[in-house]
Amino acid sequence: MKTMIMERIKNKDYHDKIMSAMEAAALIKDGMTIATSGFTPAGYPKAVPKALAERIKREGIDLKINLYTGASVGDELDGELARVGAIKKRLPYQTQSDCRNKINCGEIDYIDMHLSHVSDFVRYGFLSKIDIAIVEAIAITEEGYIIPSTSLGNTPAFIENAELVIIEINTRHPKELEGIHDVYQPLKPPNRIPIPVITPKDRIGETYIKVSPDKIKAIVISDIPDSVKEFPEIDEISQRMADNLIDFLENEVDNKRLPENLLPLQSGVGAVANAVLGGLVKSKFSGLSIYSEVIQDSVLDLIDSDKVNIASGSSLTLSPKGLERFYNNIAKYKDKIILRPQEISNSPEVIRRLGVISMNTAIEVDIYGDVNSTNIMGTKMMNGIGGSGDFTRNAYISIFTTPSTAKGGKISSIVPLVSHCDHTEHDVQVVITEQGVADLRGLSPKEKAKVIINNCAHPDYKDALLEYYSNEMNQCHISHKLNEALSWHYRFLSTGTMKK
Amino acid sequence: MKTMIMERIKNKDYHDKIMSAMEAAALIKDGMTIATSGFTPAGYPKAVPKALAERIKREGIDLKINLYTGASVGDELDGELARVGAIKKRLPYQTQSDCRNKINCGEIDYIDMHLSHVSDFVRYGFLSKIDIAIVEAIAITEEGYIIPSTSLGNTPAFIENAELVIIEINTRHPKELEGIHDVYQPLKPPNRIPIPVITPKDRIGETYIKVSPDKIKAIVISDIPDSVKEFPEIDEISQRMADNLIDFLENEVDNKRLPENLLPLQSGVGAVANAVLGGLVKSKFSGLSIYSEVIQDSVLDLIDSDKVNIASGSSLTLSPKGLERFYNNIAKYKDKIILRPQEISNSPEVIRRLGVISMNTAIEVDIYGDVNSTNIMGTKMMNGIGGSGDFTRNAYISIFTTPSTAKGGKISSIVPLVSHCDHTEHDVQVVITEQGVADLRGLSPKEKAKVIINNCAHPDYKDALLEYYSNEMNQCHISHKLNEALSWHYRFLSTGTMKK
Ligand SMILES: CC(C)(COP(=O)(O)OP(=O)(O)OC[C@H]1O[C@@H](n2cnc3c(N)ncnc32)[C@H](O)[C@@H]1OP(=O)(O)O)[C@@H](O)C(=O)NCCC(=O)NCCS
Ligand SMILES: CC(C)(COP(=O)(O)OP(=O)(O)OC[C@H]1O[C@@H](n2cnc3c(N)ncnc32)[C@H](O)[C@@H]1OP(=O)(O)O)[C@@H](O)C(=O)NCCC(=O)NCCS
Repeated sequence: MKTMIMERIKNKDYHDKIMSAMEAAALIKDGMTIATSGFTPAGYPKAVPKALAERIKREGIDLKINLYTGASVGDELDGELARVGAIKKRLPYQTQSDCRNKINCGEIDYIDMHLSHVSDFVRYGFLSKIDIAIVEAIAITEEGYIIPSTSLGNTPAFIENAELVIIEINTRHPKELEGIHDVYQPLKPPNRIPIPVITPKDRIGETYIKVSPDKIKAIVISDIPDSVKEFPEIDEISQRMADNLIDFLENEVDNKRLPENLLPLQSGVGAVANAVLGGLVKSKFSGLSIYSEVIQDSVLDLIDSDKVNIASGSSLTLSPKGLERFYNNIAKYKDKIILRPQEISNSPEVIRRLGVISMNTAIEVDIYGDVNSTNIMGTKMMNGIGGSGDFTRNAYISIFTTPSTAKGGKISSIVPLVSHCDHTEHDVQVVITEQGVADLRGLSPKEKAKVIINNCAHPDYKDALLEYYSNEMNQCHISHKLNEALSWHYRFLSTGTMKK
Repeated sequence: MKTMIMERIKNKDYHDKIMSAMEAAALIKDGMTIATSGFTPAGYPKAVPKALAERIKREGIDLKINLYTGASVGDELDGELARVGAIKKRLPYQTQSDCRNKINCGEIDYIDMHLSHVSDFVRYGFLSKIDIAIVEAIAITEEGYIIPSTSLGNTPAFIENAELVIIEINTRHPKELEGIHDVYQPLKPPNRIPIPVITPKDRIGETYIKVSPDKIKAIVISDIPDSVKEFPEIDEISQRMADNLIDFLENEVDNKRLPENLLPLQSGVGAVANAVLGGLVKSKFSGLSIYSEVIQDSVLDLIDSDKVNIASGSSLTLSPKGLERFYNNIAKYKDKIILRPQEISNSPEVIRRLGVISMNTAIEVDIYGDVNSTNIMGTKMMNGIGGSGDFTRNAYISIFTTPSTAKGGKISSIVPLVSHCDHTEHDVQVVITEQGVADLRGLSPKEKAKVIINNCAHPDYKDALLEYYSNEMNQCHISHKLNEALSWHYRFLSTGTMKK
C-alpha cells in the first residue's frame, strides 16, 4: 500500500488527505451540487458515490444533490444514487436505467444538454455553483497536478470552478495511461482565442490538470473498474446499415466529394455505431482518422488493422476485454489515441474546421428529415442528445442511421412527424436504414419526403407514409395534417402498433 | 458615362465586356443554376434579373433556374423572377411575398438552410454546380478585382465556384464604399485553419474579391437602389419586449454574468429586433460591439450616440434615409463597420469564441422552450431559419423574443407543442414576450414549462396552458398528450382562433 501511495501520489503534502470513501462521502451535504469526472461511462468516481449511497441507506437520511457529469456514468454513480433517491437534478447525459426511470416518473429533474455547452455554462455562472468536484485519477504528480483516468469530459472546468475537490485514485488503471490526455481550457469571452487543433493529432495542452492544493479536501484509493459492457454480436440489420453507410462513403469518394482517406470520423454510441466502425475494418479505406467522443473497442481494431492513424476522443470506453488489450500494448495505442475535454472533442469550431463526418443513431426520423434522438413517443427520455447535435450541425456530412422499424416491426422509425425534435431538417444530410440511403443534400422538403419514404422506410409502412405524404394538402413546402401528424404514435400507445 | 466607366472599371481589358442588361440576361438558359450576391436585402443584382423577367414575359419562353443567394433579396430579383415562374429551386432564405407564395403552393422548391452552411455546401460540391454568378459591385480595380456593394453574403464562394460571372456595376453606391469589406475564404478540410477573428473589429482578409478575368462574361451598368423598407414606428408591444430584454441584460451585468459593456450583440431581423437595438441607444450601456448579420438603421443610431465602437455584419441593410445618412458621413461610419462573408459573420467558431449575445424573433415557442422560426401553423413557410440557428446554438446567451399573441389575440405564441421546430429546447436559453422574461438556464423541461407559462404567456391563454401542462401525465420529463399537442393549431385552422 505504502509503495503504491508513493508511486501514485508523488506530492507528499497530499498524503494526509487520504481517507476512506465513507469519510470523503461525509463531506457531501443535502442540497449540494456535485460535479464529477466520467464520460460515457468511463473514468467516473465509484467509491465515494457508493459510500454515499450506503450512508444514506444506513442512516435513513434525506439527502439530495444536483449531479453534473461529463456524459453518462456507470451504475456505481447514477444507479446507486438514483436508487436511494439522492439525485435532485441531473445533467447533461445519462444511460443508467434506474436514473432514467426516475427522470421519466418526474422524480429527477434532468437537463438534457449539448455536451459542448456544459463547461462553458459552468464557467459563465449559468448553473448552480459547484460545491464539490469528485474526480477519478490515476495519479497526482510531484507538483500536485492531477492525472485523470479513462476520460476527460468536463473535469478541468469542474475542478476549476468547484469549491472543493475529492480525488479517487483508481489503481485499476495502470500508471502508464499518463500522457494520453490533452488538457486545454478556453478562456472566457472576450478573451477567448482560437482553439489550435488543426488536425486530429494535434496536442494543444498539458497531460495533467492543475489545481490549487487547498481545494483538495480528500483523496480516496479505489480499484473498482469502469463498468463498460461487451457489445453484442452485430446483427443482420446493423450489418446492412453499416454496409449501406460504407457504400455511401465510397460513392462520395468516387464522386470526388471526399478525399480517398475520407475526413475525420465521428461515430455515435450503441450497436449500430459499433457495426459501422467494424465495417470500416473490412473496407478498402485506409489512412483514416477519428475525431469523436468515445473510443470504443472497434477503434482498437481499426488501429490494429492499420486503417486508423489517430483517434481523438473524450473517453476510453473499452469493454473489459478491450481494456485488457489496450493495457497489454499501451505504448502503441497511447501513441495513436488522445483524450480531450469534451468542449474540445465536441467543439463546433474544431469539428467544422476538420470537416468531421458525423454518424449518429436516431430513434426516429420524419419524412422531412427531422430527427428524434432522445424521447421515445415524444414523452419517454431514453439517454439524451449527447454530442449528436455538436457533431451533426457542424459536420462536413451529417449522417443518421436507424433500423427502419423498432419493437419487432410494431413501430416505424420513419414517421410523418417526429414526436420530439432534436435535429431539424436544416441539419440532417443523410439518413440510412437497413433498407437504403436517403441523400438529402440539395433537396427541398417535398423532395426529401419522397427519397426518405422510398429509400429508407420499411415495406410494411411505405404505403401508409406515401398516403400521408401524397394527400393533396401535402404538395407544398412542408405540409402536415395537424390532426394526423402524431396519430401514428398515438395509435401505438393505444393499440400497441403503428399499423392500422 | 465615359468618365464614370473609367472611374468604376479601372481595368481597361474589361471595358469591352460591358453590355446591356438584356444582352447579359441572354446568357441565362433554362435549367441553369444562378448564384447571386445579396443579403437581407442589400447588394443584390437588379438590372439583369429584371431584364431576364422581361425577356421571359415578352418571348413567352419557359425558362426556370435554380436561384442561390446570400439571404433575402429584393423584388427586382425574387419578385420579378417568381412572378414569371422562372424559379425552380431557391435557397437559402427569402422574404419576398410572391416568391413565398409560390413556395407555399409547391411551385418553387425551397431549401431553407443555415446561412453559415451555404458557401461550404457549394465548395464541397453538395449542391448543383453554379453556371453563372451575378454579382453587384461598386467597381473593378486595376488588377481586375471586384469591389462588392452593400453586402458580401456568399459572393466570394459563388464567384470562385461559378463557371461564368456577370457583374452589375451599380453607380448608385458611392465609390467610397471601397474598404468596408473584409473578404476571407476558408480552405476546404483537411486544409482549413482557424478563422483569425479574435475581436469583432479584426480585419482578416482583403477589401476586394479576386476573380480570374476570363470567367467574367458580362459587365452591366445599373443605378437601381436596394429596396430596403423604412421601419414602422415602434409599437407598444415591441417597446415592452425591448424594455424586458434590456432589464434582463442589466440584471446579468449586476450578477456578474456579463461584463459591463456586455459582449458582442447579434440581433435578428424585423420590427422587434429594431426596437431592441433602439432601446440600447437609451440604455446605460456603452462601449458595445455588434457581431451580427444585418447592419440596420438602428446601428447608425448606436454609433452616433457613441454606444457602439464596432459593428460587423454581412450587409448594410439601410432604409433610403439611413443610406443617405451613411453616405453623408461615410468616412466616420466606414471606420466602425465591417462587412464579411456570411460564413464568417455567421461562423459557429467565431460566434462561440466572441461570446455573442444572440437576440432573434420566434414565430412561436412551446412550453418546453422549442422554437418555431419558419413555418406558420407548421405548414406555411414565412421566411426561413436564416442565421438564427448559427447564432442561437453558439451564443453566450441565446434569447428569443416574440409577442405573446398574434393575429389580434386569436393565436397564442406560447403553445403546448411547436407546430414546426427550428431551435430545440437544448438551444434556447431565454424567452421574452411583452409579458415578461423566462430564463431557462439550468432548468429541466418541467421547470421551464412553469416559467414560460407564468412569465411569458398572455393572460388569455395562461389557464389553458397550465391545464395542458398540469395534467397528471405531464409531471414527468417532457410530456405531451399526443392527441392534443397540436390541437391548438388545428383549432385555429378550423375555427379561426386558438381559444376554445
Ligand atoms: C438513439 C439511441 C438511443 C439508439 O441507441 P442504440 O443502442 O443504437 O439503439 P437500440 O436499437 O438499442 O434502441 C434503444 C431503445 O430505443 C428503442 N427504440 C428505438 N427506436 C425506436 C422508435 N422509433 N420508437 C420507439 N422506441 C424505439 C429500442 O426499442 C430500444 O428500447 P429498449 O431498450 O426498451 O429495447 C442512442 O444512439 C442515443 O442515445 N443517441 C443520442 C445520443 C447520441 O447520439 N450520442 C452520440 C454522440 S454522444
Ligand atoms: C420570425 C419572423 C418571421 C418574425 O418577423 P417580424 O417581422 O418580427 O414579425 P411579425 O410580427 O411581423 O410576424 C410576421 C408574420 O408572422 C405572423 N405570426 C407571428 N407569430 C405568429 C404565430 N405565433 N402564429 C401565426 N402567425 C404568426 C404575423 O402575423 C405576421 O404575419 P402577416 O405578415 O401575415 O401579418 C422573422 O424574425 C424571421 O423570419 N425569423 C427567422 C429568421 C431569423 O431569425 N433571422 C435572424 C437572423 S437572419
